[in-house]
Amino acid sequence: MTKTRVLTGITTTGTPHLGNYVGAIKPAIAASQDPSVQSFYFLADLHSLIKCQDPRRVQESRLEIAATWLALGLDTDNAIFYRQSDIPEIPELTWLLSCVCAKGLMNRAHAYKAAVAENEAAGDQDPDKGITMGLFGYPVLMAADILLFNAHKVPVGRDQIQHIEMARDMAGRFNHLYKGDFFTQPEAVVDEKVEVLGGLDGRKMSKSYNNTIPLFVSEKKLLKLVRKIKTNSLEPGEPKDPDTCTLFQIYSAFATVEESEAMRQQYLEGIGWGEVKNRVFEYLNAYLREPRERYLALMEDPGHIEAVLEKGAERARAEAASLMDRLRHAVGLGRFI
Amino acid sequence: MTKTRVLTGITTTGTPHLGNYVGAIKPAIAASQDPSVQSFYFLADLHSLIKCQDPRRVQESRLEIAATWLALGLDTDNAIFYRQSDIPEIPELTWLLSCVCAKGLMNRAHAYKAAVAENEAAGDQDPDKGITMGLFGYPVLMAADILLFNAHKVPVGRDQIQHIEMARDMAGRFNHLYKGDFFTQPEAVVDEKVEVLGGLDGRKMSKSYNNTIPLFVSEKKLLKLVRKIKTNSLEPGEPKDPDTCTLFQIYSAFATVEESEAMRQQYLEGIGWGEVKNRVFEYLNAYLREPRERYLALMEDPGHIEAVLEKGAERARAEAASLMDRLRHAVGLGRFI
Repeated sequence: MTKTRVLTGITTTGTPHLGNYVGAIKPAIAASQDPSVQSFYFLADLHSLIKCQDPRRVQESRLEIAATWLALGLDTDNAIFYRQSDIPEIPELTWLLSCVCAKGLMNRAHAYKAAVAENEAAGDQDPDKGITMGLFGYPVLMAADILLFNAHKVPVGRDQIQHIEMARDMAGRFNHLYKGDFFTQPEAVVDEKVEVLGGLDGRKMSKSYNNTIPLFVSEKKLLKLVRKIKTNSLEPGEPKDPDTCTLFQIYSAFATVEESEAMRQQYLEGIGWGEVKNRVFEYLNAYLREPRERYLALMEDPGHIEAVLEKGAERARAEAASLMDRLRHAVGLGRFI
Repeated sequence: MTKTRVLTGITTTGTPHLGNYVGAIKPAIAASQDPSVQSFYFLADLHSLIKCQDPRRVQESRLEIAATWLALGLDTDNAIFYRQSDIPEIPELTWLLSCVCAKGLMNRAHAYKAAVAENEAAGDQDPDKGITMGLFGYPVLMAADILLFNAHKVPVGRDQIQHIEMARDMAGRFNHLYKGDFFTQPEAVVDEKVEVLGGLDGRKMSKSYNNTIPLFVSEKKLLKLVRKIKTNSLEPGEPKDPDTCTLFQIYSAFATVEESEAMRQQYLEGIGWGEVKNRVFEYLNAYLREPRERYLALMEDPGHIEAVLEKGAERARAEAASLMDRLRHAVGLGRFI
């Protein structure tokens, strides 16, 4: 029996924050430990070039993200963990898929249509203003990411479902045109219960809102950030509503059910905001202390991270090799002997 | 002093014919012997997938073309001769360039616009009907072909000038965005004197007109094809016009100036068509005999061709390695140590 293959791409333009951890990293690391699953995790660094033309940011982010996942216990013996840019078969397959992918499919991609709509709203003569071929064509790259490893399942947010459908379309078209069962049809797995964490200002914690708490800041900085989390003006002694409170939400995302229940009780009993903030800080700090130490040690040892990722790339390329060889022969690009 | 770098792509969907030889192969092989030039010749097999979804045709054509160029004396010690699909850096660079290439540039590409115009003329609802991302985006692949080797000159037909301009655009944009002198601006070299040979029906000899004389058919077949070349109905003894005659044109493309002059004289003196055809056949057959023998021997030894092309790919990749490394670092995708 072949294992179910689950593939997850990680964007590499930001610094991992508490929201990323709760919504994506933690469940992914837990899933990677399932022995019935072959997980693929990759730093989607080719994709990052679409939006980020600052090489230092891309490079730092790749390193920070790799260090974060390793510090948090990603099992790289079980899961295959690699950088997209270390797999030359991905751009190669992107080209093969381009030749079977209708341009009309890309015309209908949400990200592209949103960019066009923005231009039109701004009254631009050229609806394609500022849109690169990277932005226009990236669903093909994404299809290659997935199809190269014949992933069965791809955990995604709702906004990514269309991309998986496009990958299915390309897979089906290639299989049909070249008369073979080359590609598995990948399935989008949308976790409707994904935990979304609030940020400093109460909106969803997100790099684009500049309201994040990075996972591995110093104790001092962590305290400072927790203290900045917006609360209402209720005084100590007044009962407070945990269910509309970002602090409570962050606390429960890390604490056990019992601990959360106890905190809920304290809210109702009128715990003061200063006290809540101290307790949230203490809890987070204790929770993150060990991974933070590992993270800092890893960041001091980029050679180790490089070695881990290169080993991952080797494994990934070995997984892809026989399919890629079949594909080359299927289209007429095989070796002559 | 670095040598001038001249790069030529060879499409791999057809079987080389006399027209290819006279218009492209012969001058290219002559140019490859210039010691002041570093020539790159490659089988543009990734491009061939845009138009040809018949794997046998692609594979045969690659083999036939490689055997043809070798049989005709391409000096593979001097020139670098390789298959595009053996250079993974080409699709990799294609992605890097996609991220700096405006989609608007591709909207204006002749080949794409022609395909849209055809759909519109046919009254299709969808102007992009039948257009793949490969067809739409291939000027980016072509830019990667050229820029990866920092080619100074690219001999092209007039219809290809726009693609070189697009490559220059991407080169300039990348250099500007990533603040470096990464890419040389390639120059299109259009040979206005390119010899165009007529085919069996008098129109330009071209695969699309199905009027070609393949270079290395058997003697018997060659005679049969030469006999099929269209002439007018003038009888032996009547003077004939060499300048409007396909047979004369083919003869002169191979014969020396003196031989052509002698033949011209015979036309004016009323040589019969049967006699002309015999003489054209004899001349071609003598001219092609030795390369044909080498060609047939090569076709029997695909392992040798494979080895030659793999050695070429190795040299090409070595030429590209340091630039590709600089590019990866420039965009933020370098190794961590």
